[in-house]
Amino acid sequence: MFIKIDRNTDSTYIYKQIYQGIKESILNEKIHSNEKLPPKRVLADELNVSVNSVSNAYEQLLAEGYIYTVERKGYYVENIAQFIEKEDVIKNKLPDDLKEEWMDKKGWLSLSHMTADISIFPFKEWMKQQQQAIQQYKRELSEITHHQGPYIVRKTICRMLALSRGVHCEPEQIIIGAGTQLLVRQLMAIQDKQKIIAMENPGYARNYNLLRNMHFKVLPIPLDEQGINMEEVEASNANFVFVTPSHQFPTGRIMPISRRIELLNWAIQTNDRYIVEDDYDSEFKYETDNIPSLQSLDRHHRVIYMGTFSKTMLPGMRVSYMVLPPELLREYRENYHDLMQPSNSLILYTLHYFIESGEYTKHLKRMNHQYETRRKILIKHLQMRFGKKVQIEDIPAGLHFLARFHSEKGYQEIEERAREIKLEVYSMRRFMLKDNFEEKNRIDLVLGFANISEENIPEAVERLYQVF
Amino acid sequence: MFIKIDRNTDSTYIYKQIYQGIKESILNEKIHSNEKLPPKRVLADELNVSVNSVSNAYEQLLAEGYIYTVERKGYYVENIAQFIEKEDVIKNKLPDDLKEEWMDKKGWLSLSHMTADISIFPFKEWMKQQQQAIQQYKRELSEITHHQGPYIVRKTICRMLALSRGVHCEPEQIIIGAGTQLLVRQLMAIQDKQKIIAMENPGYARNYNLLRNMHFKVLPIPLDEQGINMEEVEASNANFVFVTPSHQFPTGRIMPISRRIELLNWAIQTNDRYIVEDDYDSEFKYETDNIPSLQSLDRHHRVIYMGTFSKTMLPGMRVSYMVLPPELLREYRENYHDLMQPSNSLILYTLHYFIESGEYTKHLKRMNHQYETRRKILIKHLQMRFGKKVQIEDIPAGLHFLARFHSEKGYQEIEERAREIKLEVYSMRRFMLKDNFEEKNRIDLVLGFANISEENIPEAVERLYQVF
Repeated sequence: MFIKIDRNTDSTYIYKQIYQGIKESILNEKIHSNEKLPPKRVLADELNVSVNSVSNAYEQLLAEGYIYTVERKGYYVENIAQFIEKEDVIKNKLPDDLKEEWMDKKGWLSLSHMTADISIFPFKEWMKQQQQAIQQYKRELSEITHHQGPYIVRKTICRMLALSRGVHCEPEQIIIGAGTQLLVRQLMAIQDKQKIIAMENPGYARNYNLLRNMHFKVLPIPLDEQGINMEEVEASNANFVFVTPSHQFPTGRIMPISRRIELLNWAIQTNDRYIVEDDYDSEFKYETDNIPSLQSLDRHHRVIYMGTFSKTMLPGMRVSYMVLPPELLREYRENYHDLMQPSNSLILYTLHYFIESGEYTKHLKRMNHQYETRRKILIKHLQMRFGKKVQIEDIPAGLHFLARFHSEKGYQEIEERAREIKLEVYSMRRFMLKDNFEEKNRIDLVLGFANISEENIPEAVERLYQVF
Repeated sequence: MFIKIDRNTDSTYIYKQIYQGIKESILNEKIHSNEKLPPKRVLADELNVSVNSVSNAYEQLLAEGYIYTVERKGYYVENIAQFIEKEDVIKNKLPDDLKEEWMDKKGWLSLSHMTADISIFPFKEWMKQQQQAIQQYKRELSEITHHQGPYIVRKTICRMLALSRGVHCEPEQIIIGAGTQLLVRQLMAIQDKQKIIAMENPGYARNYNLLRNMHFKVLPIPLDEQGINMEEVEASNANFVFVTPSHQFPTGRIMPISRRIELLNWAIQTNDRYIVEDDYDSEFKYETDNIPSLQSLDRHHRVIYMGTFSKTMLPGMRVSYMVLPPELLREYRENYHDLMQPSNSLILYTLHYFIESGEYTKHLKRMNHQYETRRKILIKHLQMRFGKKVQIEDIPAGLHFLARFHSEKGYQEIEERAREIKLEVYSMRRFMLKDNFEEKNRIDLVLGFANISEENIPEAVERLYQVF
């Protein structure tokens, strides 16, 4: 054994150096299996260190299985397998294609539909409610929560949904999850893969890809003036129809009452038809009241209602919920009783107080006001700058709208130019689940206004003009 | 139309009553499609309300698609589909079997392995770091984060893992997720279903069930003195081996260096073998230093390392991470580029500061001290009360240990009696993935000490004695 003690180093303890030295001697077979190690005192004297240091090193080696001890006899080297070395030892360097490029967002302006304005988020109030959650739910925070989320939080969400969205449900029916995407996956993972899914086209491509990756047959259904085309839904033989009735994603249209009734009527024709209502941004409605949910009209437990706090609070909030009809709930519980609730419990209890105290409603009012103004300004500037070359689907709801631009350019060119001049903007290409929708001389963009300040709107519109 | 205005109510606005009245008249076919509604002023006079109230009601009905407007002519009733009523209209009451029973935890004592002690969690410091996260990462918080989690947070976790666990990796290789269970699912969902998975038995039943539900062939492999039995691993033809080398779950044993080397040697025999190292509670090691991770010994990118903050901070923290070897990372990115990061971003940025500031290390030190003391006291009391009737696997690590009790009773009886006298305790039954392990006259319990206060330990041991 060659142990060299370096007394000048600050970072490595003496015992660690002894441990390291013996460990290496064993791995390099300088000391062999069943060989006896020197007694602690002997080694301590030899190295001129304290017995304690040697003792700690021996204990660590013992815990890791490098040595064993025989009572009253001492410490011996274990019989240790040797590493097989393969020639193609991979260096620990990451291959270049896996390196991430850091993108400097300085100077960028965003017309993304995926952001939220958090500049007036009442963080102070949030922290206050968090303090209360910590005080009041100490025991609950030290334990694992119910797989659907804590009952008290579900109760609060339930009451809120009844009041604001007319949703009929009991707290038992609510499943809290870390995002709508995850909830969709959980819901659909327990369905027979033979089931057919119909989806609005254009629509939410993430769900489309998710369900296709789960090996479902997913049929994109075109929209007509009222929303998802009922003839095609009928013809599709679908078991699940995914819709966004409050504010169709991405066209922004509101599904009128008549189509809602048709959809509900469709659902009750057989026992295995369900409607998934993704109410992703229904909290934002300008000029009139909110549109009641589709679920509020359902009298046969055919609607699965989904909502989220990502749009109203923080995009990275990762608290969503779904309301399951009793039969699906029963299936869900059978399959997921040992699932861990994926949302952070401190966030959930804080949310509970944030809603109960009325802060959430206040926040929604402020945001509605803020977004309404900003939306108007963006539309005004677009119309001023583009004149007849832009046609806007002016439905006063949500956090984005569809704008159709007259242009001879192609989608790819537009997207590249936008990147060049640092404008984040998403085109309709992203949301077409199938079929070529491109019309000659027209570019459709989905314009969000949540994360652009009023002062920056003229500049963003100017950049957009430069893009075209 | 019969609209009755109730002026005494505080809760319902006048315009809502008008809206409601017209809506019901339309749905009940008291007014028919294409019928003209009275001009706003006329209806306002008739009802003795302001024109504004009528106007708001009409706008709401228009937005929801009950009526349409013809320029300069007025408002007309839409042609609306009628609800089909099925006889078996389900009442909105939740079936009894789906109701949740509220369990009063008052008076209970817990020897669960799933809890954490949060009584000395530095919430104040946490809140301070949260404040900083809010100030410094405002822009990032208003946007969607990278699907693997924010780079800066991964970088911090990466540095921490290198220092504390000897893990070799780059931030690119880290995938943050809302719990180890979710990460396992994400990782395995993109694997060929023909792949065979070997797992320690007894072991983590949640993962076992999860992978079986994903239709993998999962083989429970018995443990020998050193850990997972290598002959059976070899014979299994497995592609993935799930192990808990730092503190075997639930037996608590530490995998010695020799078995670690054998396992790594096994993994490099073919190109499609991987070891999943679940390092779920390695932060807690008493009497000696922590045991270095298996990943730290891996020179061929064969180990997938997994860790979590649930054990060290809050059980409901829902922040876990895995470190993927480059080849699996490439596959992962191809499949999950549009996955939404499921962990709350405010929590993640707060965690970043909490680690960077050194608070996390301080917290770990405090908790190690706390748990070490508590563990000793629990063992002492068990030995005092049970004497030779208990045999404890006394490995000073983690948040639980295995205790074998001499008893003529069966598992079911023991579990029922524990419930009766309000003692939360989990038996080995829960963790046996296969095979009958019951030995005559022996009951194995997995005893956790994280959520029992020192003062309550004698009482918990007394109850346990009563159970037997």
